[in-house]
Amino acid sequence: MRAEEERVSDVDIAEVQEWAREGGALARRYFNNVARQRKADRSWVTQADVEVETMLRERIAARHPEHGVMGEEQGVGAIDREYVWSIDPIDGTGAFVAGLPLWCVSIGLMRRGKPCLGVIYLPILDDCYWADAEGPAYRNDEQISVLTAQTIDGNDWMSVSSYAHRSFTISFPGKTRALSSIAADLCYVARGSALGALIGRANLWDLAAGMSILRAAGGVIRGLSGADLETTELLDGRKLPEPIIAAAPSMIDTLRGYVSRKP
Amino acid sequence: MRAEEERVSDVDIAEVQEWAREGGALARRYFNNVARQRKADRSWVTQADVEVETMLRERIAARHPEHGVMGEEQGVGAIDREYVWSIDPIDGTGAFVAGLPLWCVSIGLMRRGKPCLGVIYLPILDDCYWADAEGPAYRNDEQISVLTAQTIDGNDWMSVSSYAHRSFTISFPGKTRALSSIAADLCYVARGSALGALIGRANLWDLAAGMSILRAAGGVIRGLSGADLETTELLDGRKLPEPIIAAAPSMIDTLRGYVSRKP
Repeated sequence: MRAEEERVSDVDIAEVQEWAREGGALARRYFNNVARQRKADRSWVTQADVEVETMLRERIAARHPEHGVMGEEQGVGAIDREYVWSIDPIDGTGAFVAGLPLWCVSIGLMRRGKPCLGVIYLPILDDCYWADAEGPAYRNDEQISVLTAQTIDGNDWMSVSSYAHRSFTISFPGKTRALSSIAADLCYVARGSALGALIGRANLWDLAAGMSILRAAGGVIRGLSGADLETTELLDGRKLPEPIIAAAPSMIDTLRGYVSRKP
Repeated sequence: MRAEEERVSDVDIAEVQEWAREGGALARRYFNNVARQRKADRSWVTQADVEVETMLRERIAARHPEHGVMGEEQGVGAIDREYVWSIDPIDGTGAFVAGLPLWCVSIGLMRRGKPCLGVIYLPILDDCYWADAEGPAYRNDEQISVLTAQTIDGNDWMSVSSYAHRSFTISFPGKTRALSSIAADLCYVARGSALGALIGRANLWDLAAGMSILRAAGGVIRGLSGADLETTELLDGRKLPEPIIAAAPSMIDTLRGYVSRKP
């Protein structure tokens, strides 16, 4: 057990934060000034996404050649390794091309299929969220934790996907906001700003870093059905089997009760 | 007519931009570090809102003592003047207290009840949107105009209010995002990023600056019923008589058709 812990600590989270900031600076040079094109699923990809992912893969390969990598733009590599990095060079490319501020560089590390370290950097806010397997979670140098409200007020909010108006009926009595980045959704829950997040479609690279941060901040994720999320099944790049909600354990069933899928 | 134009030009829009940037810098010092309290309507107000409005009122009174001022935090002044400033020191206070980036300083000028000049500054993005009565509209030093799409794609988006899930049924085939600031909503339509904005509840201070910018960018505003918005009726501080939509003239009826009020 001790030996395993030492192997986790081979990864220097301060170095991962440097990679995220480097990626953010690279992407920011393209912000408001970017050529964009559609991927097969009609979503946007930009030169910035491609360059940042290439840079991150180079950093990881140079430092941890024995680790696998899966990323949004360049696909799934050797996922049979003990450690697999799951990276999204720009989570929220739609926001990025729209000139909106909430996009981020998301770098997660999975160990045997489970999230064990996460770093998410939001360049426009210069906010870095991070946590390792031991916790706690941080925004920059400030410790963060999820909100454990007893009652829900009209000013409380949850984040939702930008197609929620077509996919879900939501009776949440507070506010809903689409931040346009799943990694940012999880950060705002982890810091105790949003009460919860409703995430519709996602791949592991959208979730990996945020799940480590959310867990270290005291939060959990459940499927709308109530099922646990089996991240091991997402390692091959497939999408979530059902929508999920992230929140404090005391709040998650309440939030689930406010959301139903449209037929 | 010539004399009247000269009187409009008494206002130096570069100076108004300086006020907006000064207000933004003042507010930013409180961002992520602010005491908040509830107003009578349960919405948030912070020390930052109060200080920025006081500063803006001082700048306006010193430069244009003959003008009236109405503002979100300190109410409605002499609205019988030819020129009335309509200011929101922090539009998007909910976003501000949540640590979200899209809040702004909004400074609009009304002439005989009609918007004639607007400056909106978003400190986190360091974006300044502005226009006067002659147009065109600008983001920083770049001219902007509304989007005139022929068809609506799944990646097109419109901004909606953060309580839209409770107030409206929306069948828009693209994405919806709640930016949490009405002034920002209008800027993202004016710059051709959002196809439109659905605004539920608002006062003139939320709209005045954005209406000048939107109009100069080629956009229009209509009530959900199709009625024009009579800004003169909002000078006394009352709220909108009905929800409104902002968009290009060619798009506005299409967007109205996607939105209905819930009973």
